Amino acid sequence: MIRTFEGHTSGVTSVAFSPDGKLLASGSYDGTIKLWEVATGSLVRTLYGHTWVVNSVAFSPDGRLLASSSADATIKLWDISDFLGR
Amino acid sequence: MIRTFEGHTSGVTSVAFSPDGKLLASGSYDGTIKLWEVATGSLVRTLYGHTWVVNSVAFSPDGRLLASSSADATIKLWDISDFLGR
Amino acid sequence: MIRTFEGHTSGVTSVAFSPDGKLLASGSYDGTIKLWEVATGSLVRTLYGHTWVVNSVAFSPDGRLLASSSADATIKLWDISDFLGR
Amino acid sequence: MIRTFEGHTSGVTSVAFSPDGKLLASGSYDGTIKLWEVATGSLVRTLYGHTWVVNSVAFSPDGRLLASSSADATIKLWDISDFLGR
Repeated sequence: MIRTFEGHTSGVTSVAFSPDGKLLASGSYDGTIKLWEVATGSLVRTLYGHTWVVNSVAFSPDGRLLASSSADATIKLWDISDFLGR
Repeated sequence: MIRTFEGHTSGVTSVAFSPDGKLLASGSYDGTIKLWEVATGSLVRTLYGHTWVVNSVAFSPDGRLLASSSADATIKLWDISDFLGR
Repeated sequence: MIRTFEGHTSGVTSVAFSPDGKLLASGSYDGTIKLWEVATGSLVRTLYGHTWVVNSVAFSPDGRLLASSSADATIKLWDISDFLGR
Repeated sequence: MIRTFEGHTSGVTSVAFSPDGKLLASGSYDGTIKLWEVATGSLVRTLYGHTWVVNSVAFSPDGRLLASSSADATIKLWDISDFLGR
């Protein structure tokens, strides 16, 4: 093992690598999504907004967007470049 | 966050981007699938037919078809071009 | 909708397209996996062996193998070419 | 069927092929991840560390890393090359 990413306060339902392999996105029963930098293990951002369990996360093919689906009956679309200054 | 897609009446189990990144498909406990246009956030179409929870959605590699699996014991195949006039 | 694939006797947990888009694999609470031909909608084969719910199915990158994971604590690997005469 | 991978002591939640198709990773209710060699069916390694159900596993696009998400509220990142002598 090289690294444990801690911070979610409840179980992690899903995880996805960005297409370039630099980011990892995780969705949780705690209702948040977390973006992690693979190379350093640092937390890039916690994405708040869903009001219930996040069931799945998926990066867009170009890696610029992240979609999340939730038990709160909504899908949210997040602009990853907002968090990275790219 | 850039956008929240609202319309499902129950939790969203899964979400998938089309290969070209232009569409987002979502499956829900409400038994429907919704197709969303990523660029505008508009709902392209609600796909009715399943009679129970939609567990997963997957685009075909060429992006022309969407497959959905459901607790109703069926898989449905949807022709995406029907909804887009392409 | 262009087609409904019927045959599973319980809910369908997951679905996956083969890399060439010609086959669809489905895993079910009924413990079986079914392989479907996308173009014709015909059932190619029902894969028996798991003794409990099939949780997920995944094609190998070259499309020749299908892996399935099950609540029966096993993973099974299926040679797709066996069923297609390819 | 060509092979059954046995060793997990509880249900298998998810399975993923490495991008080169040589490895199969499985996550289980038993809290472990197992890496299997596709060609021989041998168990390469059992990855211990999670303290509860492993919900999903995903290979990085370059196949060098495996990410796992768990009900224990953590994500773990595993360096695959450690186990293969590559």
